[in-house]
Amino acid sequence: MSKPSFTQDAVTELRASFDRQGLMRHFGARLESIEDGRAVIVLPFSENLTQQHGYFHAGASGAIADTAGGYAAQTRAPAGSGVLTVEYKINLIAPAQGDHLEAIGTVLRSGRTLVICQLEVFALSGAQRKQVAVGQQTIMIVSRAET
Amino acid sequence: MSKPSFTQDAVTELRASFDRQGLMRHFGARLESIEDGRAVIVLPFSENLTQQHGYFHAGASGAIADTAGGYAAQTRAPAGSGVLTVEYKINLIAPAQGDHLEAIGTVLRSGRTLVICQLEVFALSGAQRKQVAVGQQTIMIVSRAET
Amino acid sequence: MSKPSFTQDAVTELRASFDRQGLMRHFGARLESIEDGRAVIVLPFSENLTQQHGYFHAGASGAIADTAGGYAAQTRAPAGSGVLTVEYKINLIAPAQGDHLEAIGTVLRSGRTLVICQLEVFALSGAQRKQVAVGQQTIMIVSRAET
Amino acid sequence: MSKPSFTQDAVTELRASFDRQGLMRHFGARLESIEDGRAVIVLPFSENLTQQHGYFHAGASGAIADTAGGYAAQTRAPAGSGVLTVEYKINLIAPAQGDHLEAIGTVLRSGRTLVICQLEVFALSGAQRKQVAVGQQTIMIVSRAET
Repeated sequence: MSKPSFTQDAVTELRASFDRQGLMRHFGARLESIEDGRAVIVLPFSENLTQQHGYFHAGASGAIADTAGGYAAQTRAPAGSGVLTVEYKINLIAPAQGDHLEAIGTVLRSGRTLVICQLEVFALSGAQRKQVAVGQQTIMIVSRAET
Repeated sequence: MSKPSFTQDAVTELRASFDRQGLMRHFGARLESIEDGRAVIVLPFSENLTQQHGYFHAGASGAIADTAGGYAAQTRAPAGSGVLTVEYKINLIAPAQGDHLEAIGTVLRSGRTLVICQLEVFALSGAQRKQVAVGQQTIMIVSRAET
Repeated sequence: MSKPSFTQDAVTELRASFDRQGLMRHFGARLESIEDGRAVIVLPFSENLTQQHGYFHAGASGAIADTAGGYAAQTRAPAGSGVLTVEYKINLIAPAQGDHLEAIGTVLRSGRTLVICQLEVFALSGAQRKQVAVGQQTIMIVSRAET
Repeated sequence: MSKPSFTQDAVTELRASFDRQGLMRHFGARLESIEDGRAVIVLPFSENLTQQHGYFHAGASGAIADTAGGYAAQTRAPAGSGVLTVEYKINLIAPAQGDHLEAIGTVLRSGRTLVICQLEVFALSGAQRKQVAVGQQTIMIVSRAET
């Protein structure tokens, strides 16, 4: 189990990394919170994120879930290293309908090379909060030169 | 095994459905081809689709792969029915760097209720074509009222 | 969301079903507990369950995890119906070394047709209990005639 | 991409490794063939491998599929190194009913640290050969000391 290298500097660096993601900006997503082993991304509804029936597209849910897991894993990576998604699997368990989505990435286990994350996506409408997706992800820690 | 209901009318209907997907339009993706059991989506590179290192974001690869599988499955669904992604799993096997991405969804098996698809994503740069992702997807056929 | 049909008769029936599984008997596995939305299978160590280094084989972990999820799902299926595993995905997160394995299947969501389960496997040695695998599974509810 | 270290000595070593797997012996499985990037395991039917309806148990299909992928990956690992299954995902697409099962593991991509494999399982009855499962697997190459 790797020692977390998670400091305020790390938060600043991870937020800067998130801001460089053209896709998250294009989506209108924001990194709501980042702490040791956990990241939350919020995605407000927009017509630009829909599938053919007007709900959030599964691809939008999947993209923010994958990204939340990646940043959660990054909190367990040694300073100066990066992360790559090896794979993820996601079950879409309810229509993603609401004012915004919330994706939560949580580290289940972190090793020297691999980090395993749980992925959850919720749809929020006013006071209602409903889980719409659940997934599992494998992340590889790489030296910055390899990313 | 369901009888394919795949006619020219079906192609027209599926293309109209694709055009209603706000996310695919926002990405700048196009449905390159659709035939019995197979759909191809092309996604030109844009700064709006990047991760923090300037390559295509895994979430973009995942979204077009999921969508290609969904339309491939739809060619095996009875007329008047729709499809929902139950789950997908995707391995990202190389950096998604290139002029554009090509996602191919291919039906591996179609039953009365479920369709299993193979997902492949390639990155193209000039004459070069490199596979960057491979996945597997489960789709459920539903009556239009349920979608 | 289906109404659970989970009575003492159902427990008796599910235990009888488990006892008909030649593989679980050949493994020496037992259905430790079964309750609404949750099943636990215990598998004592044996030389007959090893991989090349003498630990429990990943295939043994996978088999009891899949089975635990199936029985957990079955507690949410209407009386007279059966279940089929559509797919499962499992991450092996530590060597499966110990006196016995414990696989827990927990229903995350149950619908009319599909049930999604979380799969967990722990290795136990004396007082030590270590998680060795985590997975996610999709189950389909079918009328008994289809199983 | 790693240079394959796949010689006749490697075949001999991999067959010896397979013979040390208590689970494969307990199943009555045999390593039918092993070549660069591909391994085939055959599993004759037995009452000891069944689920509650008398077909091959999904856990048996999963175990031989995972094992076939592991040995396929091993043909791409440097001499003196071993492999660990990181994760696998398998779709069960038809009842596994027949005289025997055949599991084929095929390397889709091999890197320095990770190998991605396709998994296929077929059920054979006389002259009939039907695919019953398809999967995808991530393998990690490790120095022998880590296995």
